[in-house]
Amino acid sequence: MRHTAPLNAHLMGIDTHEEPIVFMRSDCAICRAEGFSANTRLQVQAGERSLIANLNIVSPEVLEEDHIGFSDSAWAFLDLSEGQRVHVRHAPLVRSLSALRKKIYGHELNALEINTIIRDIGRRLYSDIEIASFLTASAAGHLTAAEVTAMTRAMVNSGNQLHWTGADRVFDKHCIGGLPGNRTTPIVISIASAAGLMIPKTSSRAITSPAGTADTMEVLTEVDLSLEQLQRVVEQTGACLAAGGKVDLSPVDDLLIRIERALDLDSPGQLVASVLSKKVAAGSNHILIDMPVGPTAKLRSREEADELAALFRQVANAMGLHLHCVITDGTQAIGYGVGPMEEARDVLAVLRNSVEAPSDLAERSLFLAANLLAMDSGEPLDVTIPRAREILYSGQAWQQFQRICHAQGGLKPLAEAPHHSCLRAQRTGKLGAMDNRRLAQLAKLAGAPSSPLAGLRLHVKVGDSVIPGQPLATLFADTPGELAYARDYYHQNRDLFDIESAS
Amino acid sequence: MRHTAPLNAHLMGIDTHEEPIVFMRSDCAICRAEGFSANTRLQVQAGERSLIANLNIVSPEVLEEDHIGFSDSAWAFLDLSEGQRVHVRHAPLVRSLSALRKKIYGHELNALEINTIIRDIGRRLYSDIEIASFLTASAAGHLTAAEVTAMTRAMVNSGNQLHWTGADRVFDKHCIGGLPGNRTTPIVISIASAAGLMIPKTSSRAITSPAGTADTMEVLTEVDLSLEQLQRVVEQTGACLAAGGKVDLSPVDDLLIRIERALDLDSPGQLVASVLSKKVAAGSNHILIDMPVGPTAKLRSREEADELAALFRQVANAMGLHLHCVITDGTQAIGYGVGPMEEARDVLAVLRNSVEAPSDLAERSLFLAANLLAMDSGEPLDVTIPRAREILYSGQAWQQFQRICHAQGGLKPLAEAPHHSCLRAQRTGKLGAMDNRRLAQLAKLAGAPSSPLAGLRLHVKVGDSVIPGQPLATLFADTPGELAYARDYYHQNRDLFDIESAS
Repeated sequence: MRHTAPLNAHLMGIDTHEEPIVFMRSDCAICRAEGFSANTRLQVQAGERSLIANLNIVSPEVLEEDHIGFSDSAWAFLDLSEGQRVHVRHAPLVRSLSALRKKIYGHELNALEINTIIRDIGRRLYSDIEIASFLTASAAGHLTAAEVTAMTRAMVNSGNQLHWTGADRVFDKHCIGGLPGNRTTPIVISIASAAGLMIPKTSSRAITSPAGTADTMEVLTEVDLSLEQLQRVVEQTGACLAAGGKVDLSPVDDLLIRIERALDLDSPGQLVASVLSKKVAAGSNHILIDMPVGPTAKLRSREEADELAALFRQVANAMGLHLHCVITDGTQAIGYGVGPMEEARDVLAVLRNSVEAPSDLAERSLFLAANLLAMDSGEPLDVTIPRAREILYSGQAWQQFQRICHAQGGLKPLAEAPHHSCLRAQRTGKLGAMDNRRLAQLAKLAGAPSSPLAGLRLHVKVGDSVIPGQPLATLFADTPGELAYARDYYHQNRDLFDIESAS
Repeated sequence: MRHTAPLNAHLMGIDTHEEPIVFMRSDCAICRAEGFSANTRLQVQAGERSLIANLNIVSPEVLEEDHIGFSDSAWAFLDLSEGQRVHVRHAPLVRSLSALRKKIYGHELNALEINTIIRDIGRRLYSDIEIASFLTASAAGHLTAAEVTAMTRAMVNSGNQLHWTGADRVFDKHCIGGLPGNRTTPIVISIASAAGLMIPKTSSRAITSPAGTADTMEVLTEVDLSLEQLQRVVEQTGACLAAGGKVDLSPVDDLLIRIERALDLDSPGQLVASVLSKKVAAGSNHILIDMPVGPTAKLRSREEADELAALFRQVANAMGLHLHCVITDGTQAIGYGVGPMEEARDVLAVLRNSVEAPSDLAERSLFLAANLLAMDSGEPLDVTIPRAREILYSGQAWQQFQRICHAQGGLKPLAEAPHHSCLRAQRTGKLGAMDNRRLAQLAKLAGAPSSPLAGLRLHVKVGDSVIPGQPLATLFADTPGELAYARDYYHQNRDLFDIESAS
């Protein structure tokens, strides 16, 4: 294909999220000669780097002549500088799209086909609608365990991989999620690593929830570690509590998750590949999966959880991983705090054995830590639960947590949001249930997780009796506007706390 | 949901094609308070109109404070004026997405569910990735005939519908496509309407081919008729040869086709719903489907054509339509011209019975016209073919074509492209085949259909003997650059003409 005249690169100052967009003028000679129009897929060549982007057409006043504009993510991916000369042409055929079509037609793909799809997504050759099509065709149990295994391997290969010397067994834990305040990870990691397990934990930031483990840990210490920093922390302490972003483990997973969340698609195959690829890339080989089941949790029924656990086990076996799934109670929020700072407050209370420590968070963390210890030693839970309890109650877990935080850059003090508002009960009764999804929404409207101080603190748990005027929760926000926005939502959704009349 | 402070609308001068995009500043207080970030789905309210759009975040220098930018299509859909006050909020839940998820899980949808999906797509509530997900879930025979019927009805209801008085039977024809130069429609419509059939034909412009019927007819007369103009032309002549765009028949089809083409998805269900919804909306009840079958046509095999024909018949029966499918030869381009002007030249040659008239185009048109006459009278083809031939050879078809063109605004003179270049054979042999897809690509690289004079003219057909230096085709282009671009492509793709050595 012959090259067209070069164009001068210009950063538009437009953040289109991950989808790369280029901007060309409607009167551009190249557009006319090549037959480019809005939404044409173009290949942009900038020195050694190239990328496929969607074209937007702009009016002449928006862009100088002989210039081509780039969205933030396209600019970063090509590592451009202002005025740099680039060439464009029609995007070449992406060959793995024929494998995608095969999947759409309901055929099983072989490992090579899955590998090329994942590789091409990683090279940014797929448009968002092509990724959406791939996710749809692989959703809803349309992937076999062999396909999920191939996808997991391909996703591991798409990014960095960590290798740990000095330990045969490297542990990790993962929660399927959906419970606000369920911040067991910092406690579990502290107990398990205090017991001598190597457990290098990288976590994601929240995507749709009011806080991820990385958001909560960021309130307490540095989490954006480089690969070298992370390795040093794990060497010093046997563990870490870092954010996954900078370390670039299974980066294709991030590209897929973005579209999956936008589609609100539940895909067991994608979920298993996503979780296991991150763990394998982090060098783990012993993995504990926490599966909360409840009417407003992610997993709604025991059957759904059993099916997912079976797929997890099949893929883990094929990959040579030791994996254990535990099904836990997912009926209500865990602890009292929801949002980065309020969850951090609960975590510290448990680690410090304070009187305010929420016992459900403590018990849950002990149960999970004991399962990790049992995976390591082969002993039954009635041996490992007391051991985990001893580590927590003796203060060893708290010391270990401080060691990890110091290795990551120091322990930060807790703080409180400048604005708060109390949500009160209107009638007498017993709290029968709370809606996890709407509780999460409430904390997000108050500003969590982008405002780490924002969120809420529960004052009641399921089973508690309440009377009119009794505080159910306190909202925290950075600004009066956000506080008002969340309070309005609560007034329209009072039934997220289901108060059963005494009969 | 409470309203946020108003923002002032600004037209960005960015054409993002059909996907509506809004642009807000990264330092915007509303973004922060509402938790908006790049790719958030927003609902924009502008007076009585509202729309859901994807958010792009821009640097402060790109947009004035308290302003919100709009892409061209979002601006047009909301009918905005500069500085108009608009409100934004998080997009509400689109309820039909739960029906989409049901389809992804492989369940059959009922008519109500399909209707709400199509309605919500028409209201621009779906993002491109959601449309891609819907198309993927319904591709590859995943729709039952009942689902396709419901989709056809819903698509008809999404736009205008024409009703014709004075004729019980209203005819239409459609070609599945994939053959360059296959411009039978103007000839078929002229013969059929000269024979007294009512056949109000609206055609699309080319999407991926070097010319659609609307592009070719636009070379010869006005095609962008209003609903009133179109009705007047049909009243006067019993037919029309108009573009479909302005009349707004089955507009959801256009939204679906855009994503379907971008995904290069072949979906029999979508195809049938697309074709039949346009015909029903145009008021037709007797429909002829031309199905060219050949190795480089859209339908590759007889089996594929039979399956598609069966689905067409089932849906047509359910809708109370008379439908007849004919399978035709799809091995090579039809006529000599490819591209709007060169195809128009062939059409006129056939209608005028000139000596240069390509006999394959004439015979094909006669066959299709005779099938329409047979659908009307119930007579066999050996009666209707001679009648069609008589109408063409006697000049009645040519007179009728001129009548239609005059009613649409007059017959324009033919013209020739300013630049041309001859493509010659390099060796001796017989032309065994030609690649329809690459031939179409060649004409598009020369500038067709956006330059109506661009395209190519074949000098050989399959079966002809050639010697080195003999002209195979002439390329036509508006600019030397486009001509060079197409010629280069030919030099890399000489084998699109398969010249078999004499043995």
